[in-house]
Formats: sequence, structure tokens, C-alpha cells
Amino acid sequence: MSTPPGARRIDGRAIAARLRAQAAEVASALRERGVQPLLAVADPTAGDEGAAWYMRSISRAAEQTGIGCQIHPVDPAGGQEAVTSLLTRLSGDPAVHGVICQAPLPPGLTAAAAGGCIAVAKDVDGANPASLGQLAAGLGGAFAPATAAAVIEILRAEGVPLEGRRAVVVGRSTVVGKPVALLLLAENATVTVCHSRTAGLAAVCREADVLVAAAGRPGLIGAAHVAPGAVVIDVGITATPGGVMAGDVDEAAVAPAAAALTPVPGGVGPVTTAQLLRQTAAAAWRAETSRIQS
Amino acid sequence: MSTPPGARRIDGRAIAARLRAQAAEVASALRERGVQPLLAVADPTAGDEGAAWYMRSISRAAEQTGIGCQIHPVDPAGGQEAVTSLLTRLSGDPAVHGVICQAPLPPGLTAAAAGGCIAVAKDVDGANPASLGQLAAGLGGAFAPATAAAVIEILRAEGVPLEGRRAVVVGRSTVVGKPVALLLLAENATVTVCHSRTAGLAAVCREADVLVAAAGRPGLIGAAHVAPGAVVIDVGITATPGGVMAGDVDEAAVAPAAAALTPVPGGVGPVTTAQLLRQTAAAAWRAETSRIQS
Repeated sequence: MSTPPGARRIDGRAIAARLRAQAAEVASALRERGVQPLLAVADPTAGDEGAAWYMRSISRAAEQTGIGCQIHPVDPAGGQEAVTSLLTRLSGDPAVHGVICQAPLPPGLTAAAAGGCIAVAKDVDGANPASLGQLAAGLGGAFAPATAAAVIEILRAEGVPLEGRRAVVVGRSTVVGKPVALLLLAENATVTVCHSRTAGLAAVCREADVLVAAAGRPGLIGAAHVAPGAVVIDVGITATPGGVMAGDVDEAAVAPAAAALTPVPGGVGPVTTAQLLRQTAAAAWRAETSRIQS
Repeated sequence: MSTPPGARRIDGRAIAARLRAQAAEVASALRERGVQPLLAVADPTAGDEGAAWYMRSISRAAEQTGIGCQIHPVDPAGGQEAVTSLLTRLSGDPAVHGVICQAPLPPGLTAAAAGGCIAVAKDVDGANPASLGQLAAGLGGAFAPATAAAVIEILRAEGVPLEGRRAVVVGRSTVVGKPVALLLLAENATVTVCHSRTAGLAAVCREADVLVAAAGRPGLIGAAHVAPGAVVIDVGITATPGGVMAGDVDEAAVAPAAAALTPVPGGVGPVTTAQLLRQTAAAAWRAETSRIQS
């Protein structure tokens, strides 16, 4: 799909490649020290197709980056307990540097309860509410959800100024909206968070120098939502009936006004995977640093 | 000081009295069950005058409410360790239901490190980053900082609609700005957070139906910052050279436009103390509930 003149189409795959190269450099330095960086994925999804696709793409990217990736299938018959005990065990395993839990989760297990079993130091997808708390408190030492961090990495890669600028985030989820807002705030942006109850969404969005759409509603963001010159980051990925992934942003409608935008696919998605690997490499590096220093 | 016509002057002391009455009712029900609700205050302030004044006012309000309040002075010679070990001990003491640590802290001890020693269930002033994380993740079971919760209680008491309205928070501290923003978001407001790097602060503030000033800069918010009909909550309390407490809001300048505002003193301050006691009573009630059910 071609973008009409006006908007620069941000190349998420190129940014992802650069981030993976950084992760590969850290991984290589660790292997020289005899440490193999390792990401462990708890998989309670019982063959869910979307989840399987995502885990394959992580595995493949990890392999290219020199990071190990172990998928641990969890028998759904084991219920919540099987998932939480696996996450706890992986958190305690010194050979494992990053732990994530793939959704969908078994019935009754909340993302917060699963995330709460992942040690903060290994919580490379920021799933533990304690990691979010560290982020909110402006402390280091915890990782943001990879998707939220990917948004900032894209803006940084594109040289988009944030200090003192208006950023508007559409969506207030624990995995994207809120952590993106906190990260933008840490970059000294003036941040507004919108959601399904926001009155006059288009007008609020038009205040944005940087608009982050993370509502999970295909086509929600149209021409009326984008001020001339705004940078639009589309985090929404919804599987449409035809099996195609659709973003929150109506790209054709927005492109004439926007200065730049991320496409779906090829925007935030690949950067998220790369950022997950980068955070895994960073977790392994920190573990090695503290091993040496203790 | 009288307020010019236009703005209703919100009576924080009256709201505080109603909140204390609620806390007293819970405390009374607990005493009937043989449980004395108890707030423990770690005091490493070595006689700091402002801190002493604040602790006396908590003590007095607690006594009136039927909640016990123990002040535990910490010898400054003991350094950080003396404070953190006291907080850990109080967190483990079954007779204690709420634990707070009075600032100023000894050199080198961060608020996050001190707060991190307070068990989340007893963290009645939301000082533990893990409590903030629970708040951000939209989970129950943790308390917000009393000041942040007081802002919401005032808006609730005054019947100020929040759903779908624009709320602007000036200040992004871990104790006030960020938790207030999260609480306003949970009330379905569209929330903007401003700070020292915000460009065009007055214009951003004028977007607010509800303006929360928590910058700690006396007189920062003037006539240009307030849209007609806005409700203005002044959280900023700064001791001026003359020893008078000054808010962030220039009350006389703002009153003609605002629909309502909180004065300093007599606004957020007394409500904060009342909310701290209410959260202590709630913590004691939860502890008793889980004792019965286990």
C-alpha cells in the first residue's frame, strides 16, 4: 500500500534491524564471557494461532540475534497453578535472563497475577505491576512493556522532538497506553491520555504533535484527528475477519496531514520484537554485571 | 481571606470532618471486635519543625477518630539502616495496620527505598513503588498516596463530574502528580499532565474542566490559566519566608473565572490527613477480614 505524499512512512523494519544489531552486540559480548543470553517463554496458549505466529517470530528474531529462546508449553489441564509455578521457576533459574508469558492466558488467570510471578529483574516485557510501579516512580531497574518502549525507540530513531511538545495517547491499557504515557512524560512531553469515554476525541487528538494510537479499534483515527505536521504512531493491531492485521489509524486519510506515520504491518510490530530482545540482552548484561560485582 | 464572587470556596475542613466520621465508624466497629486500629509513623526527622507540626496534626486527628497513632523516633545516627529496619519491623507487626515514614529522610535514603520497606497492605500513604504499580495496573488492594486520594475525594464530595471531562494536572511527582493523574483516569476523565518543561502552560491549563495544581510553586496558576467554570484544586503547599503556607494558585486572580476552588490552608491539607486515617481504618478492616476468612 502506498502512502500519499505528505506523510513520511516510518520504516519499522529498518529501525528493528538496528535495535537487533545492538542486542546482537551485547549478546556477542556476553557469549565471549561464556554467558548465553536466554529468553524463556511460558506458553499456556494451547495452540492459539496468533500466539503461535508471534512466538515463532520472536524465536526467529532471537536466533538471528544470538539470543537463546526457549518455549515452555504449559498443559492447559494444569490451570493457573501450572502457569504461575512455571513462571516462578523460570524467574529463579540463573540460566534464564528474560521471562515472558504468552497470552491468551488460561481462564481466571489475570495478566497482573501472571506478571506478578516474574522477577522484576527478568521481567523483559514489563508484565509485573511492580515493574510498572518502578517506571511510574521514575526508578531504573525495571523494564517497560516492549510495545511501549518500542514507541519511544521509534520516535528517538526518527529524531522526533518530545521535550515540551504535546503528546496524545489514545488508549489507557496497562500494557500500552499507561506505560507509553509514563515514558513520554519521562521524555518531558506534555502528555494527554484519551480513551473510550473521552468527549470530542478528534479535537483532543488534534492538539498532538505526537499522536500514539493504542485503542485496538481499526480505523479509529482519521483525517479529523490529525493536526498538520503531527507524527502518528499506530500501536493498534487488530486481526480483521479477512485475517489481515489492521491498525487504529486510517493511513490513507491521515497521510495528507501527518508529517510521518508508522504503517501496519511494518511499523510498531517489528520494533516491539526487537526491543524485547534488546531488553533480554540488557537483563543478561545486568545479571552478569551484578555477578562480577558481588 | 475572602474570595471574590464567582468561585465557590471549597471547605476542605468540612469534607475532612465527614471522611473522619467514616473512619471513626470503621474504627468503632473494629474496637467492638477487640481490634484497635493503629497507625505507626517512623520519624527520622530529628526534630524538623514542619514535620513535627504535621505529625502532631495526624496524632490529634487520629485520636479524635479512635485510631491509635504511634510515633517512632529514629536516631539519625543510625542512618538509612535504622529507618529501613524500623519500617520492615512495623510492616511485620500484626498490631500495626498502617505504616508511614515521615519526611525529611536521612541523607542518601530515597523515598522509594524507604517506601519499598513498607508492606503494600499497610502502605496507607502509597509510598511503595509496588503500590503505585498496582494503582497504575488498575488493581485493587493498594492505597494511593493520601494527597492524591484527597483530590478525588474533594471532587467527589463536591459532585464535580469527571467522566469524559478534561482534567489537567500540573506537576508529575511520584507522590502527587502521577498518582492523581492515574486516579483521574480511573474516573474516566481525559487527563493531561503538565510540568516545568511544558510549553504554553497557561493555554494547556485553560483546556481543563478540572485543574489540579501540584507544582509546589506559589502563585504559578493565575487568571490566564483558568477557563470560565473550571474547578481548581490547589495541592501546592510551600512554606514562604514569612512562615505562611502558600498554594500554587493565586486565589484572588483565579476566583473570578473559576466555578470553585480549594483554599490554602483549609483545602487539600485537612482532607489529606482525614484520608490517611480513612486508609488506615480500611487497612485494619481488610486485615481483620482476611483474619476471619483464613
